[in-house]
Amino acid sequence: MKIGVKVMPRKEVLDTQGRAVESTLRQAGKKLNACMVGRYVVLDLPETEKTAAIAKAKEMAESVLHNPLIETFELEAL
Amino acid sequence: MKIGVKVMPRKEVLDTQGRAVESTLRQAGKKLNACMVGRYVVLDLPETEKTAAIAKAKEMAESVLHNPLIETFELEAL
Repeated sequence: MKIGVKVMPRKEVLDTQGRAVESTLRQAGKKLNACMVGRYVVLDLPETEKTAAIAKAKEMAESVLHNPLIETFELEAL
Repeated sequence: MKIGVKVMPRKEVLDTQGRAVESTLRQAGKKLNACMVGRYVVLDLPETEKTAAIAKAKEMAESVLHNPLIETFELEAL
C-alpha cells in the first residue's frame, strides 16, 4: 500500500525555499499571498491494510523522514 | 485559497533522493517495496473560487515550480 508523507517547515522557522519561490513568482508577475515549500515522500509498503500501513509510515516519518525541530509531517493513504 | 502542488520525479528518471531514503530506511530495519521523494509546495492565492485558484496554480506550476523534463505535478485544493 502506498502512503504519502507531506513534510513541511514549521511556521516559526524561516522557509528559505518558500521565500525564493515566492519572490520568483512575484517577479514573473504572479499574484500570491504566501508560499511554503516542503517535501513529499511516497512510501510503497508491503502492508495491505490501511491502519497498519499508516502506523509503519508514521514510524518511518518520525525516525528518518522529518526533523521535528524544524518540520511537521502529515500522512495520507494513496 | 490554498492550493497544494505535488511535484514528483518521473518514473524514467533516477530518483537519487528516493534511493538514499530507501537504503537508509532498509538499514534501519524497515521493510518497504519502494520510495519516491519529491517536493510539496503550498500556494496561498488571492483567488477565493476553487476553479480560478486551480487555474492560477497550474500556470505557476508549469512556469516555475516544476521541470517538465524530469518531473510531473499534481494539484489539490486545501
